[in-house]
Formats: sequence, C-alpha cells, structure tokens
Amino acid sequence: MGSNSFHMVIARLIHGEIRTVEKMGEKVQLGAGLDANNNLTEDAQQRALDCLSRFAQRLQGMPPSAVQIVGTNALRVARNAHTFMERAEQVLGYPVDVIAGREEARLIYLGVSHTLADDTGRRLVIDIGGGSTEFIIGERFEAQALESLHMGCVSFRNRYFPDGKIPRKQMDKALTHAAQELLNIRHRFRHLGWQSAVGSSGSIKAISSVLANLKLTNGTITLEALRELRQRLVDMGNVERLSELGVRADRQSIFPAGLTILLAAFESLEIESMTYTDGALREGLLYDIVGRIQHEDVRERTTQALQGRYDIDTAHAAAVEETAITAYRQVAEAWQINTEFDEDLLRWACRLHEIGLTISHSQYHKHGAYLLRYSDLSGFSRQGQQNLATLVRGHRRKFSNAVFEGCDEDDIPRLQRLCILLRLANLIQHPRNREQPAGFRVEVTGPNELTVSFADGWLEERPLTRADLENEQEYLARQKFTLNVL
Amino acid sequence: MGSNSFHMVIARLIHGEIRTVEKMGEKVQLGAGLDANNNLTEDAQQRALDCLSRFAQRLQGMPPSAVQIVGTNALRVARNAHTFMERAEQVLGYPVDVIAGREEARLIYLGVSHTLADDTGRRLVIDIGGGSTEFIIGERFEAQALESLHMGCVSFRNRYFPDGKIPRKQMDKALTHAAQELLNIRHRFRHLGWQSAVGSSGSIKAISSVLANLKLTNGTITLEALRELRQRLVDMGNVERLSELGVRADRQSIFPAGLTILLAAFESLEIESMTYTDGALREGLLYDIVGRIQHEDVRERTTQALQGRYDIDTAHAAAVEETAITAYRQVAEAWQINTEFDEDLLRWACRLHEIGLTISHSQYHKHGAYLLRYSDLSGFSRQGQQNLATLVRGHRRKFSNAVFEGCDEDDIPRLQRLCILLRLANLIQHPRNREQPAGFRVEVTGPNELTVSFADGWLEERPLTRADLENEQEYLARQKFTLNVL
Repeated sequence: MGSNSFHMVIARLIHGEIRTVEKMGEKVQLGAGLDANNNLTEDAQQRALDCLSRFAQRLQGMPPSAVQIVGTNALRVARNAHTFMERAEQVLGYPVDVIAGREEARLIYLGVSHTLADDTGRRLVIDIGGGSTEFIIGERFEAQALESLHMGCVSFRNRYFPDGKIPRKQMDKALTHAAQELLNIRHRFRHLGWQSAVGSSGSIKAISSVLANLKLTNGTITLEALRELRQRLVDMGNVERLSELGVRADRQSIFPAGLTILLAAFESLEIESMTYTDGALREGLLYDIVGRIQHEDVRERTTQALQGRYDIDTAHAAAVEETAITAYRQVAEAWQINTEFDEDLLRWACRLHEIGLTISHSQYHKHGAYLLRYSDLSGFSRQGQQNLATLVRGHRRKFSNAVFEGCDEDDIPRLQRLCILLRLANLIQHPRNREQPAGFRVEVTGPNELTVSFADGWLEERPLTRADLENEQEYLARQKFTLNVL
Repeated sequence: MGSNSFHMVIARLIHGEIRTVEKMGEKVQLGAGLDANNNLTEDAQQRALDCLSRFAQRLQGMPPSAVQIVGTNALRVARNAHTFMERAEQVLGYPVDVIAGREEARLIYLGVSHTLADDTGRRLVIDIGGGSTEFIIGERFEAQALESLHMGCVSFRNRYFPDGKIPRKQMDKALTHAAQELLNIRHRFRHLGWQSAVGSSGSIKAISSVLANLKLTNGTITLEALRELRQRLVDMGNVERLSELGVRADRQSIFPAGLTILLAAFESLEIESMTYTDGALREGLLYDIVGRIQHEDVRERTTQALQGRYDIDTAHAAAVEETAITAYRQVAEAWQINTEFDEDLLRWACRLHEIGLTISHSQYHKHGAYLLRYSDLSGFSRQGQQNLATLVRGHRRKFSNAVFEGCDEDDIPRLQRLCILLRLANLIQHPRNREQPAGFRVEVTGPNELTVSFADGWLEERPLTRADLENEQEYLARQKFTLNVL
C-alpha cells in the first residue's frame, strides 16, 4: 500500500524459483488524501478500501504465512493510520504492517537485485515513491547503504504543483527542497561510490519512456536529458499536455514532481546516467518470504533450473561445453573474445542449446531462442538474454544474418565467433557418446579463417563427423568464414 | 533401409511421450542397385555401407534393446541380401532385420496414426516406397486392412523411365502395370471404404508440393490435378525440367514413376482427394518399441502431459473448465457451436490456458499460443493446434483481430464465441478459490450480444469480479460484442 499506488503480486515457488502468477495495481493516491493535520480523509480511506476489497477476493483462502501486506510512507505519517489499518485488516482478512523507510529500502534493493544482471559491480538504486524516496548502494544481493528521504511525487505534487500548472518558479522551489533533503546522504553516498545507477519506480519508468519518445535518449536517463525535459515541461505549462509525450492520464499530475526529485538526485549525487528496472518493493517482499533461496551464483542457478525444467540431457550438454571451451581457450586471444563475460556466455549457451527440443525437434534452435528471449531469467540482463538466445539460435543449420537480428551492431563480430565455437562443439559431439576428440587443435589462420585438426587417424575413423565438417564449411561460407580441416 | 532412401530417427521417451531428438536421411537408392539377376551390385552395397557408417557413429553406445534396424523391399527381393546384411551388421554393430510387406504396412499405419489428428473416422493410407507401395485402411490406432504391392518409384523408374525421358506411351504402360497390381486389393478396399485419405512418403510429399507450387491446388491431391500434372510432365518431356516445378535434383528421376503409381491408385480405388502427412515407417518403429504407451484418448493424454510438463495449476484449470462448460451448455445451440468438436476445443483450451506462465507472466497468453502452435502434439491436426493456440492467445487482455490471425476465415465466428466463453470463465475464476458462481446464467440476447446474471447478491459481494466484468465489457466492444451484466 504505497502513497501513490497499491500493488499486489502473486507468485508460486516452483523448483526453487519464484514464478509470478499475477500482478495487479491501482492508482489509489492515498498520500494525496492526507489533510492539513495529516489525517487520512474518509474519501481517501474509502478509495483505498475499495481497491483492497478487489485484492481481497483474489487472496481468499491463501494460508496467512504466504501473505505479506505492507504500507509505506502515507501510513507512516498518517495520524489515523491505526483506524485505517483496522478497517483494512477487516476487508482483507490478513494482518497489515507498516514498514520503516530503511526496511522499505532494503526490500526494494532485494527486489531490484533479483531482477538485474548479476555482473555489474556496485550499484546505486533510487526508487521514487508517493511519499518517500529510497536510496540504496549495494553489490549483488548485499545492500551497503540504505536511506529513505521524506519526499515523494505525491507529496511534492500537492505542495508545488497542486493545480496542474508547471511554473518555472515552482520547479526551482521544489528542486531546492529536494536538494536540501539530499544533503543528508550526499556525502556518504558519493564517498561509497558505484559503477552503475538504476531506478525502479513508476515515476522513473515514465521519465525513461518520455525521454525515449522524445528521442532525447534511447531511454537511458542522463543529467542533460533531464534538464532538457524540465525546460520542455515549463514551456508546456500544464500537465494535461503531457499526454503529447505519452504520459498516461493517471500519472500526469505527479510527473513534474517526480522529475524534479530525480533531477535533484542527479545533481546532488553527480549521477552520470541511469537505467530503469522492473523489480521493486513487491518483488522484494516475495524474495523476503522465500528467504531460503540461495543467492550465490544466480545465473548458474537459473541455468540449472532451466536444464531441469526443460529436461535437457545434461551429460551431453557438459560434453559440448568441454569441447567448446577446449576450442575457446585456443582462439580466445587471437579472436579478442577473451573476457570472462565471453567465456560465461559460451558456457551457458552450451548448457542450454537443446532447450527448444521440449517444444519440437523441428527448428528447435529457433524455439530455444524464443524461450531464452522471453523467459524471466534471474540474474541475466535483457542484453545478456538476447545474446544467449542468439547463440542458441545460431548453433546449427543456416548461419545467416537472420541469426544476429536484434543484436547490437558492435556485438555481432564477437557473437559470430562464439557461435562458431558452439557450432563446432555441437558438431563434434553429434555422435552423443561424450567422447572428447583426440588431439583437437583449433587455430586462427587468417582473418575470418579457422583451421581445425585432430590426432592422426581420429577423423578418418569417424565418417559422420567428417560429413558434418564438410557441411559446416558450406554453412560458414555464408558469413564469409573459412573453415579448414586438416 | 528403404529401396529409395535410408532413414534414421532417434528419440527419447519422456513422461510417456516420444520426443524426437534427431532425424537423418540419405538417398541411397539401394533398389536401383539390383542387377538383372536381382543381386545388389557391389557399387550399391558400398553406397549403402557408407551411409550406414555415418549412422553408426551416431548410434555408438546405445543399448541394443533401444535400437531397431529394418530393411524393406530391396532387401526382400535381393538374392544376395544375406551377404549385404552381414556386412551391414558389421558396420552398424547392431542386428538388422528385413520385414515383410504387411508388417511394413502395419508399422507405417502405426506411425501415421500417431501423427494424424485423432478425429477423422476411417482412413485410407498410401505409402509409395522405392520397391513397394503399402495400402492400409484403419481407424484411430487399429489397422483393418494391410497390403503391400510389389511396385515402387525406383523399380518403376528403372523399368519405364530409365533415361530421364517422359514419353506418353511409357506413362500409359506404367499406369496399366500399376492398375493391374491394384486389382489385387481394389474390391476389398472399396468395399471397406474410408472417410479420408492420406499419403505418407517422399513421393507423395513431392507431388503435393508441386501441385501447390503450380497453384493447381493448395497441396491437396485430387484426381483432376494428378491428370493435369501428368499432361505437364509429358509436355516437358524430360525429368531435368522438373526443377522448374521445385522438385529437388535427387528426386527428379523417380518423380514420374511415383506420380503414375499414385494416379493409378486414385483411379482404381476412386479416391477423391488426399492430404500428405509426415509420420511413416520410422515413427511406426518408434511407437512399436515403446508399445506400452496407451493409445486411448491421445489428445487427452497429450493435454495431460502438457499440464504436467509446464506445471499447470490443474485444480484451477478444472474450475475454469467447469465454469466455461456451464456457460457453453446454455449458449451452444443459439450460437451454433454445439458440435462435440467445439466442446472438446473449449475444454482443452481451459486446461492449457496458463501454459505460457512457464516462460513469463508478462504476455503469458502469447507465450502459451507459441507453445501450442509449435509443439509436437500427438493426436492434434495442424488446424486443431492453431485453433487451440488462438483460444489461449485470446483468453485475456485485448480481444483484437490480431488474436485470430492465421485462422481460416470460416472458423473465426465460431472461435470468437468459444473465446468469449473462455474469457468469461477465466474472469469468474480470477479469485482462484475454485468457487463456482451461484445461479450463473448466460443467455444469447441478440446478435453478438450476451447477457450474464448471478444469484441475488452474489456479484455484489465480489468487487473484483464486478470490476473484471466491467473491463471485459470494454474489451468485447472491440469485436462488436455486447456483454450485459444483470
């Protein structure tokens, strides 16, 4: 029960993984219902209870231990929170908690860290709520600094933009207010530092998408873009015109407030750029409930879970991985694919390349790519999933440009090379007897040219492998790669 | 080891289902290697052994009980078959059998019947091999008549079209020869009769696809189209020109022979039309090995297997099914969706509508549609799978034209109506407490108009359901459907 919206997420725990079953959300604006004495008005309470009654019908019959309901800032500050919470418990049939700002920050970080790729070093997370804004610095699943500041997009809207107008002067006042709040954390946070910054609330999502709509950026938030956006808002003068930028009606009135808070954070903390991520408080609550889930090596665990769920022949996958890595070690430097990131990608692709067989043998490389692209894979970034899907898509049959559609141009040469190694390993393991090839040598013998050889007589005794290698020479020629077999 | 090509299929048995892991095939033309004394030439034997050596590398290490290798007509007639089989066993490392024509027909039917939809009544199956052609009449998994005639596309090619020319006179001779062979089965087969005819060999596949390429039909084979095609072949005069019709080089020389045999079968048995299907001898061998698989209610079993594989909440699915069928019973007649086929489709869609949750909660109706469209579903026809995928695609969210893309125009009104019932049931079961709605009434109250009502007070106590029904009214309006809620 946030100050701006109420959210509910329902999930099942399957094979040690959280699987979302349903998400619901309503813009209740509870924080806007605080009167001058910080009491929730009857009107606001009724809005909230109506929403809860709809959620309640969905919750019916669940065991209490599986349900966790929390309120944030509006209920932290409301003097009559107690009365409201009694009414809420009556409607819901489950106990309701109010959590402190730091606890909210901890849970947000828990949610975010399970949604993000597991490979980005120390990160700054900002979540702009209706009544408070949370700031966290953490690494992987460990938060190192947790703060909750008493400013939010609903409270700022009420104070600085109550009538939908966006005067420059009010913007400046709000900015100063936010900057003052940020003084409390500025020093400590800048001292700790971070490698990447992510934002995780509806406000930040809306800002990111407006920047993309305006083509100011590709959705990445930068200081320069925020300043440009502030200027455009002032020029527009009224929140109603925000629909021109693609802002939904129910979010327009709070948009200038959210923008101001984020701009202040960028200036005070000297943030260079920020991306938006989905996970937040609700996901954090889920991960908190099932705390026993191991946090080590999320991507390893994700890969393993996928192997299990889709009945992958793991012994065969391991043999393919061993062959691929043997080849990788011999060419990684010459081919400039010698980062840990490249090796990991190749390993995961080996473990998952047959995932599409669950759907159908015909075109299974394409089905596998579909599954890897659209599944919720903990620990993988969107780009990481796309790259993994690409390797699986290209691990057999035609090696055409279509394989690399949707990839970043810059990544393609690297992905092509990793893909060739996977194809080679897959081909060598075609007999599925897990035998590693004797005297297997791979050498980069020219630009786009690879030469493979085996121990004397090894290949001669293996007519299937010989035929497969001949086919592969033709496939690779499509991408102007030469494969020599000695 | 067929007279025309050698095939290998490898599969795993998972959760009682056969999952194809690999298919390989080579055009060995063993039958063409029979000399005047019906001895296999050394040249032909060597071609065959080379192919087997490639297969053998793939088979290495498999337990003998899991491997079955059979030869058909060329090995039935070859005088030196015994010598060849000893050499083949040496190369393969597994025993090799030659099967009789009837047994071949039985296995072909087993393979075909597992590939076809399980709802088409009695069927005629024809498989044109290199050295023999099999004819079967059967119903579901039961063959009622099995015959193997001693004519095939390789033996007829050698006899009537040895030099690649296609003279009218040779066509007529071949047709007469085939008609004489067919005299043996004509009476009995016509007496038994059938509701549908399917063909299952490479020859029939090629004919079907040429008819489609020429736009003579959509791929369905008819007597008229076969006669037209024969005329075109005679006009062309040489098999080399068949590449203009899209016939692959390695199939061109045997094409006129296959066409002649099929045309003779159409004329003798008075077949009206025939479709092509994938399954054949290799699949039959697989199903024969795992004979313990139950043949009853294939589609029920397929649905159940999918529920298990994708961890579907079956209790919830059953509740949705019950609600949907309650509604269905009340409107099926008025809406003209009162066939057994419609009810089955709705039931299966209810059982599988949440299948896409395995991939991701976001857009799971689309992921579900993908899975249902591309998975190998025993017992379902291609069209049946498409319809099932369509219902799942449209069971929630936008009810737009995009939902029905790829469906037959004629089917759309029916699918829309079934889809609305599924949507309604899904919505009513949204609280997931498996409660069936009290006094649930559904009535067709006008063209494209449905009126639903519940026992007094039932809806008033369920605010989530009320809100969902209001949303649904807006969704359905997109397809010009009116939903009244009393």
